[in-house]
Amino acid sequence: MKQRPADDYVHVSSVNWQPFPGEFSGGGIRWKLLHVSPEVGTWAAIFDCPKGSSFASHIHIGPGEYFLTKGKMEVRGGQEKGGATASAVGYGYEACNARHDQTHFLEDSEFYMTFLGPLQFIDKEGNTLAVVGWEQAQALWAQQTGQS
Amino acid sequence: MKQRPADDYVHVSSVNWQPFPGEFSGGGIRWKLLHVSPEVGTWAAIFDCPKGSSFASHIHIGPGEYFLTKGKMEVRGGQEKGGATASAVGYGYEACNARHDQTHFLEDSEFYMTFLGPLQFIDKEGNTLAVVGWEQAQALWAQQTGQS
Amino acid sequence: MKQRPADDYVHVSSVNWQPFPGEFSGGGIRWKLLHVSPEVGTWAAIFDCPKGSSFASHIHIGPGEYFLTKGKMEVRGGQEKGGATASAVGYGYEACNARHDQTHFLEDSEFYMTFLGPLQFIDKEGNTLAVVGWEQAQALWAQQTGQS
Amino acid sequence: MKQRPADDYVHVSSVNWQPFPGEFSGGGIRWKLLHVSPEVGTWAAIFDCPKGSSFASHIHIGPGEYFLTKGKMEVRGGQEKGGATASAVGYGYEACNARHDQTHFLEDSEFYMTFLGPLQFIDKEGNTLAVVGWEQAQALWAQQTGQS
Repeated sequence: MKQRPADDYVHVSSVNWQPFPGEFSGGGIRWKLLHVSPEVGTWAAIFDCPKGSSFASHIHIGPGEYFLTKGKMEVRGGQEKGGATASAVGYGYEACNARHDQTHFLEDSEFYMTFLGPLQFIDKEGNTLAVVGWEQAQALWAQQTGQS
Repeated sequence: MKQRPADDYVHVSSVNWQPFPGEFSGGGIRWKLLHVSPEVGTWAAIFDCPKGSSFASHIHIGPGEYFLTKGKMEVRGGQEKGGATASAVGYGYEACNARHDQTHFLEDSEFYMTFLGPLQFIDKEGNTLAVVGWEQAQALWAQQTGQS
Repeated sequence: MKQRPADDYVHVSSVNWQPFPGEFSGGGIRWKLLHVSPEVGTWAAIFDCPKGSSFASHIHIGPGEYFLTKGKMEVRGGQEKGGATASAVGYGYEACNARHDQTHFLEDSEFYMTFLGPLQFIDKEGNTLAVVGWEQAQALWAQQTGQS
Repeated sequence: MKQRPADDYVHVSSVNWQPFPGEFSGGGIRWKLLHVSPEVGTWAAIFDCPKGSSFASHIHIGPGEYFLTKGKMEVRGGQEKGGATASAVGYGYEACNARHDQTHFLEDSEFYMTFLGPLQFIDKEGNTLAVVGWEQAQALWAQQTGQS
């Protein structure tokens, strides 16, 4: 018989930040991976984003929810271009297949986010550069922190 | 053809706290409902829990993830009894069907939580008192805030 | 590091039917449990429903999809009362929180169904009689088939 | 307030088969799209696969479950190479991120499948050729059937 998966707890403050790959971001974004759920493909992480940093263009393959605890974030071009400009404390729901060409941080910011499914990073023509889900996130985190 | 659901943004700081029902909690817990996803049955909320407050016994019908931004929370009896004692900033994953007989707040606390599926509140014999999911949460919130 | 869950295969024709509990059905319904996914709370089963059989009143706590390979099934009172009357080969999507007071089989029928979350069986006043999800389904199946 | 999504019913036998794109399959596979769920990104379809047909290499971005009602299908190279050889009536669970380099049909076959998330079609080096989820499936189906 199958068992219920283990509950999990992470004291986030005790975990060290790791650099988020420059391939997927600019301006010194750091992250902590908090959880992966391999069966359904969800994962949770927290991101530290200095003023002026940004994420590369990506599509949310499934819905994602962020909780901005510090700073100011422009999503989908920001409020002026039909997207959202989030200010702490802010919550956002990004729908399945939401495309984020522009995610900028106007102040030093921090947000926690839960993802269903991967991020599909794309170039300007929409070609896929990388698909980053629970498995790739876990592999990167393990490599950065020496876990096995 | 079906459309992609709308993205959503809530400036959490601008939303007023509402009392969380005494039927399901004690000690003055307040909440803000941030989002419901009616298709799959997920919902997201933030809870303000004064020192000494607690939630009534419940089962998480699906997995839930919390992000504790302030204070100290004892889950499943706390670390001493095999559960977790979360301190801010803390993250926790509560597995599908996790039973929470005791959730206490040892300090003034605040946490954000995403739920898949409802909470099943139960009495000491395990009988169901209420099933509170996206639909019940939305109805309560609408009643409390006068939304329609 | 967490592993990808195992793929799974069941030769359905080789598995023996077991009686579906009379508490939840009438008229001799039998079932085979095919899969449970404990992390997210999905499960899959096939049901053999003689002419005149029916399921007791229940709420689908999450969305469910059926594939009727044989016979005729009235869902939510059937087409005449605003529900659906499915004829093989038929497909149906039952939304999260769909309430099924009347599910009757007008002919010898068979259907395969995938569930997210449990079925909440209720009495006429809407009181909860039982919550049957992956864990309860697996326990029943193990007891019926002698698995451990 | 948000509404519960509509229930849905399709009399599968009354829907005409459409060709499944040659880009993603060989040997004359046909399909019927039965449902899409835009919020969470699930979709359901039935496939008609002549003897000798096959699907191109792909990764299941989320878990998928098939129900083989007719014929014989080799998944992940078939039983001899560590995969599964499914015979009707057969059920299979393909885990999140399962990679299917070889899916062949040894007899005229038919199967119903539910997908969470898209299929990522890849070339021999693992480069992404296409990501096909609920949105792309719906667009293709609408184009093939003249729906809007």
